Amino acid sequence: MERALDNLIDEVKRLILIMGGSVEMALQEVTQAIATRNASKLKNIHQIEQKINEDHIKIDETCLTILAKQSPVAKDLRLILSVLKINTDLERMGDQVMNITYTTGDYLTRPPLAQVSMITQMGDFVRKMVKESLDCFVKGDADHSRQILLMDDEVDDLKNKVFRELCEHMKKNPQDVDASLDLILIARNLERLGDHATNIAEDVIFAFTGEDVRHGGKSGA
Amino acid sequence: MERALDNLIDEVKRLILIMGGSVEMALQEVTQAIATRNASKLKNIHQIEQKINEDHIKIDETCLTILAKQSPVAKDLRLILSVLKINTDLERMGDQVMNITYTTGDYLTRPPLAQVSMITQMGDFVRKMVKESLDCFVKGDADHSRQILLMDDEVDDLKNKVFRELCEHMKKNPQDVDASLDLILIARNLERLGDHATNIAEDVIFAFTGEDVRHGGKSGA
Repeated sequence: MERALDNLIDEVKRLILIMGGSVEMALQEVTQAIATRNASKLKNIHQIEQKINEDHIKIDETCLTILAKQSPVAKDLRLILSVLKINTDLERMGDQVMNITYTTGDYLTRPPLAQVSMITQMGDFVRKMVKESLDCFVKGDADHSRQILLMDDEVDDLKNKVFRELCEHMKKNPQDVDASLDLILIARNLERLGDHATNIAEDVIFAFTGEDVRHGGKSGA
Repeated sequence: MERALDNLIDEVKRLILIMGGSVEMALQEVTQAIATRNASKLKNIHQIEQKINEDHIKIDETCLTILAKQSPVAKDLRLILSVLKINTDLERMGDQVMNITYTTGDYLTRPPLAQVSMITQMGDFVRKMVKESLDCFVKGDADHSRQILLMDDEVDDLKNKVFRELCEHMKKNPQDVDASLDLILIARNLERLGDHATNIAEDVIFAFTGEDVRHGGKSGA
């Protein structure tokens, strides 16, 4: 019984890493498509997202089986609950990357804007957050997870900068409204991706320490 | 043992309804603040969101207790897993309403735009979706949940209309870029709220029928 549970836990961990790898890859592809103005890079992303959705269902089903047949307790139960949450976050991250992909498709039909460099910078930074949050999950590293929570402020700063600069740009260059709005929406999606990476970091802390750091900790504030 | 489980299930159901009611109320307050240009209505929303965050933690803790001590199976286990997911969605809905609240605070300092009527229409429609998805949860109504999935298309259409009209408006009226962008971002948040209501409807279908309708059904496509 014990060994069956360990094997199933290893299996869901493996699936989470595959799914996380897919999210990272999709984010890298779309960031490169924006940076190099290469729309052909967008085509692969649909396939990657389909794989993410398949893994999403598979992980939920495996967790349901574990809960129904193995009745895990204590740290095993916390880990399964965290996997369920991380699974939801990764799937929504796939949705966010798809939103970016669609908007990038539109953006690449328009004249380029210099402000795009801020977007690729944001994309690279968010991908680092995603990668590090999953590394923390593999290693059970709650300490580094706390560092990831702090990185989210940097993403918010970058997004605010994109918003400010593009608002000013639109006022002076109304012909660039469409392209500017595309980049603003992409920045917003990247900010949401950063939020999801933060959620994963919070789930890692809960899984490996039992501490609930959401909403500023136990107080629920 | 059986009665203890039933009581705990009733307790999490009750908490979900309270939390859902808070989300509905917050959404109503912010929609009215926009419609009536009354910024004082925004003040209550912070308090409502704090309550949502407290219930979020409480529901997760209760579900953890149920899983650890009662080892539910079959439909009880499906219900608890659905409650965990609905809990996550409601908390994120609270975050979205807070985003709308902050943006509305900015919007109300600027000259009004006629297009705001589309936003209040969207807000009312999304609130209806939230209410109906929670009614389905209470009644275990999987059939009506399927209707809610269809309502999401209407929200997307409304959002696209807001985007199109405000893009054109910005091009001709660069002085209205800030206010237009506020409404565009609010429309995007409302669209996300509609997505979360859709997620709840999907969870209700899973909880009460065992059918996983996400990603177009069992195939994972």
